[in-house]
Amino acid sequence: MIKTKAFAAYDAKTPLKPFSLERREPNADDVVIQISHCGICHSDIHTVRSEWGPAKYPCVPGHEIVGHVIQVGKKVKAFKVGDTAGVGCFVDSCGKCENCKANEEQYCQRQTVYTYNSYETDGKTPTYGGYSSHITVREKYCLKIKKSLPLAAVAPLLCAGITTYSPLKRYNVKKGSKVGVVGLGGLGHMAVKLAKAMGAEVTVFSTSPNKSGDAKKLGAKYFIISKNPKNILDKSGYFDLIIDTVSAEHDINPYLQSLKKDGTVVLLGVPPTPHKINAFSLIGGRKRLTGSLIGGIKETQEMLDFCAKKKVFSDIELISADQINEAYERTIKGDVKYRFVIDATTF
Amino acid sequence: MIKTKAFAAYDAKTPLKPFSLERREPNADDVVIQISHCGICHSDIHTVRSEWGPAKYPCVPGHEIVGHVIQVGKKVKAFKVGDTAGVGCFVDSCGKCENCKANEEQYCQRQTVYTYNSYETDGKTPTYGGYSSHITVREKYCLKIKKSLPLAAVAPLLCAGITTYSPLKRYNVKKGSKVGVVGLGGLGHMAVKLAKAMGAEVTVFSTSPNKSGDAKKLGAKYFIISKNPKNILDKSGYFDLIIDTVSAEHDINPYLQSLKKDGTVVLLGVPPTPHKINAFSLIGGRKRLTGSLIGGIKETQEMLDFCAKKKVFSDIELISADQINEAYERTIKGDVKYRFVIDATTF
Repeated sequence: MIKTKAFAAYDAKTPLKPFSLERREPNADDVVIQISHCGICHSDIHTVRSEWGPAKYPCVPGHEIVGHVIQVGKKVKAFKVGDTAGVGCFVDSCGKCENCKANEEQYCQRQTVYTYNSYETDGKTPTYGGYSSHITVREKYCLKIKKSLPLAAVAPLLCAGITTYSPLKRYNVKKGSKVGVVGLGGLGHMAVKLAKAMGAEVTVFSTSPNKSGDAKKLGAKYFIISKNPKNILDKSGYFDLIIDTVSAEHDINPYLQSLKKDGTVVLLGVPPTPHKINAFSLIGGRKRLTGSLIGGIKETQEMLDFCAKKKVFSDIELISADQINEAYERTIKGDVKYRFVIDATTF
Repeated sequence: MIKTKAFAAYDAKTPLKPFSLERREPNADDVVIQISHCGICHSDIHTVRSEWGPAKYPCVPGHEIVGHVIQVGKKVKAFKVGDTAGVGCFVDSCGKCENCKANEEQYCQRQTVYTYNSYETDGKTPTYGGYSSHITVREKYCLKIKKSLPLAAVAPLLCAGITTYSPLKRYNVKKGSKVGVVGLGGLGHMAVKLAKAMGAEVTVFSTSPNKSGDAKKLGAKYFIISKNPKNILDKSGYFDLIIDTVSAEHDINPYLQSLKKDGTVVLLGVPPTPHKINAFSLIGGRKRLTGSLIGGIKETQEMLDFCAKKKVFSDIELISADQINEAYERTIKGDVKYRFVIDATTF
């Protein structure tokens, strides 16, 4: 077994603390990764605090993982020792259902095995995430990363990157597309960078007037303070696509009105209460409201390759393991530009 | 001017009464139609009762119109005297915006001129609908109907038919598609017939257990009593498309759950209060919620031709003008199988 140092939540209320665990020795199709960096995603916080249902404690969060391959199983072909690799939000799935076969393992009809707070396909072995020194993952669920890239800034692509890339690609964002991004946090800042890199004209909607400068620096052409719905309605009939990353309660009817005919609002955030949607907001102009959940392995690789080519990375603040709890508090307050990433050598 | 007998609402509260009006003599591109039949759509009732905002009184409703051409303007090419013609929900639009050019005049960016309770493009001449003996309409906004068809049963295709046909086509319903229809009224019964004619397997969701027999006769394979959400959830992950025709308050989250990945719920009805949508209902399985508004002239003609070929018509109850007010009360109670159509010779 591979001795692994980690940080874990032991319950919903107390700070994360050091934790030791053992990763499995590689099976024939496994890759062992020595983790170099792991991003802090807001969903880590929701999970360890049991805000999305009771967590399985001890809970080692983290699903924005990059590192170096130190061991491979005897049938592994795509990775060799010394390669740089990434792991995202899931580490296994059935591989046989129609969604897995369509390379959308995140919608596996049997069981998507999440990187943490989940069980392996045996239904009993808990999964532990990337706030740790090592991880063993099936080759098929690992991503290839160019060694020369700034790895700390690549880590958040594994969740924030793919989560925003997938709907931008799906709705065919290209040169000239008019894209709105609601909320400028971890997901939002990636949505701006990616949409811009695809050639879109980007507008950021935010409740924080002081984010205007950053929005423009990240690539947005317009910045709209969303507290007053009138500001949103000034763009009535304007957008092809709006990526809504906000998890706080907010009214999306004005965003639906700001879409062109056949335009789409994609929800990525999950507010605590249901959205209230007027049927007329959808019927007039045949607007669409949809959601999107991360992306499959194939699309995640495509995103990583796109980001490497376009030099799109996350804006990050690098921290050591002992700063995780402070980083959680700052993430909750939105006081981060735009992602905390843990230096995994500090576990 | 063409003397025209009609029925009109004079205010929101009192029954419709006889009314006389004059239709314009045909301009160069106009067609004058002697109306033979006009369907009663639930939106007629909402409109004349000012339930959708204050109506323009006197208000002559009716937008499911068929009849015979008795006069044509000198530049009219597509119609000649003696032809059978139809008029749907709108009678004009700008013709120049991108939506008009894309044959989607119902989404005209300047002004869709509705068949009644609207103004002509001059902004001041009121439009009067099909509860009348004659109507003068620009050739471009008239539909061609085969003389040999059962005209009374064709009339409802001009609204109920195209409103359901358009989303079925848009979402590519074909042999093997699994389609759900929520609500078995005027729109719902057309959705069932059309989806079946396109080759789909159709499931009807209704709160009325006694509609089961009818649903099957109309072409549905399954009938589900929707009062208990559990019944809907039994079909979790099942449907490609659900057409929701219900204008009463109801929870659509179970319908979203009953969709396959990338499936779509299309709203056609407008309940009095907003729908409450859990973001997770859309994110998990990347479900779509959308709406649809009638259809353009080109698509309406395509629908009429499809219905003629497939012998799909509305199930109707033919009434005379003096039965309109009684028909309204019965429509509100859902006591009609499935559309009242007025014999326009009785005005």
